[in-house]
Parts: sequence; structure tokens; C-alpha cells
Amino acid sequence: MKIDVLSIFPEMFENVFGSSILKKAAEKEAVAYNVTNFRDFADNKHQTVDDYPYGGGAGMVLKPQPIFDAVTFLSERAEKKPRVILLCPQGERYSQKKAEELATEDHLIFICGHYEGYDERIREHLVTDEISIGDYVLTGGELGAMVIIDSVVRLLPGVLGNQDSPVLDSYSSGLLEHPHYTRPADFRGMQVPDTLVSGNHKKIEEWRMKESLRRTWTRRPDLLGEYPLSETERKLLEQVKKER
Amino acid sequence: MKIDVLSIFPEMFENVFGSSILKKAAEKEAVAYNVTNFRDFADNKHQTVDDYPYGGGAGMVLKPQPIFDAVTFLSERAEKKPRVILLCPQGERYSQKKAEELATEDHLIFICGHYEGYDERIREHLVTDEISIGDYVLTGGELGAMVIIDSVVRLLPGVLGNQDSPVLDSYSSGLLEHPHYTRPADFRGMQVPDTLVSGNHKKIEEWRMKESLRRTWTRRPDLLGEYPLSETERKLLEQVKKER
Repeated sequence: MKIDVLSIFPEMFENVFGSSILKKAAEKEAVAYNVTNFRDFADNKHQTVDDYPYGGGAGMVLKPQPIFDAVTFLSERAEKKPRVILLCPQGERYSQKKAEELATEDHLIFICGHYEGYDERIREHLVTDEISIGDYVLTGGELGAMVIIDSVVRLLPGVLGNQDSPVLDSYSSGLLEHPHYTRPADFRGMQVPDTLVSGNHKKIEEWRMKESLRRTWTRRPDLLGEYPLSETERKLLEQVKKER
Repeated sequence: MKIDVLSIFPEMFENVFGSSILKKAAEKEAVAYNVTNFRDFADNKHQTVDDYPYGGGAGMVLKPQPIFDAVTFLSERAEKKPRVILLCPQGERYSQKKAEELATEDHLIFICGHYEGYDERIREHLVTDEISIGDYVLTGGELGAMVIIDSVVRLLPGVLGNQDSPVLDSYSSGLLEHPHYTRPADFRGMQVPDTLVSGNHKKIEEWRMKESLRRTWTRRPDLLGEYPLSETERKLLEQVKKER
């Protein structure tokens, strides 16, 4: 997969693409990153990328020209039409399903605005996807782009080895993860549950299933609505509800 | 505000804290960042921070000792008890309201795990807030911590100047932003709406209100449920619905 990012703060991406799984993925050639400062595409003398909004008001608006020309330049080199993703609060709410969809593409281009708004013509004529990573206000699209890139790249074939096994993958199973414990069994008076150190694998499985249901029921009951409970899970969930 | 981050990838934060608003906020002394590699607190010879899970299974689990000792060390230097925030998929969904709440604190400590799970005793005995930035799987807590820090720091007094006026602040008003346009009025055949270049401020206000309602109704009708419509807004929304 080829990933292009347009940002006027390209240095923000250096150590993020250069660490951990994102770094390994590039070393394995599962992905190639390229960060472009779209200021370099501004066709005016001062390399201005923003201007005052028509109709007045506070704040600046990103001009269409530098972004159109940067995306055109990056797309021309591509064999297949890329997905052009705009990070913005008005966009579709990002989800694991969207990550899985984007992971099937060959080429993603991310447009990151920074405190400014975007000229509407960028949305209308250039962009294929508008995405918001959540209902909170961020200074720019850069962190949103990093979040999406991380969630997509780790899904690419060959990127995650056994060692990086996704323990945190709560959303893949449809339930929240059960609690985890590691040594020591007694840490400053705080104990690991007896079942987990019992060596009884059947009981351990049941404990995990039950605690996963308990956590989901307590914290994210909305997830249970979409989850097809097995007969065993249904019984355990009944126990959990009684134990409250 | 003092912000501590615990991560085994401290370099990921350098250029993020060193760019844009987060950089300016530190220069203005509205915030001080400190990133700690909790591997430095591991009391074993090999500085191991994770271990196999009790009960078996794939993936590694972060040991309690290094994280407990790092948080204790960082808290001891603090005058007031800090908020200790764990980034994890099972956490409370992050929102602008939570950002506003965290912005009133003096000291935040972020614990970032990385592909591993956390030993449950960390959650139970050390952490004050478990937060998830959205329903998608990330490799570690680092990007989530950056997202929260960005959204919080920009709310601190004196951080945002007039120039950085929050055009993107869709969630503050309760509606999505209306479209923005800047020069040129004709960009390669794509036009700015006549109203915006008319100079008629009353019409411009009405256009913006209507387009903000249209965008919210089309993309995020859930937000309209919580929004107290004025009489003018109610009428404009009726028009929008008829125009579809």
C-alpha cells in the first residue's frame, strides 16, 4: 500500500512512521509512506496556503489551489485511482469496519488541514472520503491521519507477527476483552484471581468468557445488542447480571 | 498544566509536542510536557516490562511493577493528586465534554500500553480514568494520548490566539459547520455561491445558518436531537427538508 499525507507540519509524522509497527511495516515493504508539505505546491510568491473566508468571520480557510495541485501530482504517478481522505469533524465517524475497508486499497492520500477550514470545493471535487475520528475538537487533521494509518497498516497482510498478537483487539470479537494478569501472583498485596493460576484450562476459559461478558455489559452494553450470544454465553451473562 | 506520558516509544512524542499549538502552548508556559520511558523503572536486570499472561494465550501483558513505580515517582513530585489516564479500548468513549473536564486539572499522567494488554491491577489500583478515543483498534496508546493532549491543551487559557480561531469547532456550537470558501471566486470553473460574495451580511448569516443545519441534518441528525432550535433555525430546517 502507498500512503501519502498532505500537511504543513510534515515533521510531526517522522517519528510516528519511524516507530513500532508502522516502522516494521515499511521495512517489510507492506507500506510506503510519503509526506508532502502542500505549501510547496502554492503558486503564489509567498507560498500562502490559506486566505480569508468569503462572507467574513474569524479564522482562515485553506485555498483550493495548493491542495488540488498536490493531489493531482500524487495521483498522476499512481496506477489506480487513490482514495482521497479529508480529516474533518463533519466527516463519517471512523470505525474498525472503515479501517478494514481502507486496508483493501492500494493507495490512500490524506489531506490534513490545520486550524483552518477547507474551501468547500476541495470537499466537493477532490475528496472521496470525509472522516472524523471522534466527537472532539483537534487542532488539525494530522493526529487523525496517524490514527487511521495505524489502524489500517496493522491490518495489512504480514504486518503483525505472532509476537504482536492483538491482545487489545476488543472490537474484533464484538465483546470487550477480559482482564489480563501476569507475574507476580501477589504484587504488593494485590492478588491474581485463583482460577487463573489453577492450571484448569476449562475453568480459565469460562472465567475469561464470563469476565469479558461482565465488562461488556458494565461498560458497553450497546455492543451486546449486536453480539450473537452462544448458549454458554447466555447462561454466563445471566450469572453476571445476578451477581451485580 | 503538567502533562506526563509513560511510553516505551517516547520518541513518538517529540515532534508532536514540538509543532504547532502544542509547541506554542509550552512556549507560553501554559503546559509542560514530560515523557518517561517506563522501561527505565523496571527493577529486573533485562528491563523487561511485559510477561506472559496467567492462564495462557497469545500476546503479552504489561507488568504492574514498572508502571506502578513510574506513576508513584511522578506523583510524589506533584502538589495535587494527578489524574492517571489509561488509554484502552475498554475505556469510556472520549468526548469534547471530557476534554473540557480534563482541562480544569493541574496534572495529567497518561499510561500508554503498546500491543500488550495491561495487568488488571494497574486498572484497579492506579488509574483514575480509562479512555478510548473511538471504536477502532490501534497498536498502542500513544496516538490516543496525543489526541487527548491536543484537545485538552487547546482549551487552556491563553493557548489559542485570535489567529488560531477555531473554525473547525463543530462540536462547540452543537451543529456541524457551514461550508467555507476563499478566493478565487472562480477556481477552474468551480464557483463560490453568489450569496457569499454579495456583501449582504444578513443574507450571508442566513445562508450559513441554513447550510449548517443542512449539513447537520444530512450527516449527523443525532446532533439535532440535542440542539435547542431557535424559531429562525426551525424555519430554515423546514426549508432544508423540503429542498432535499
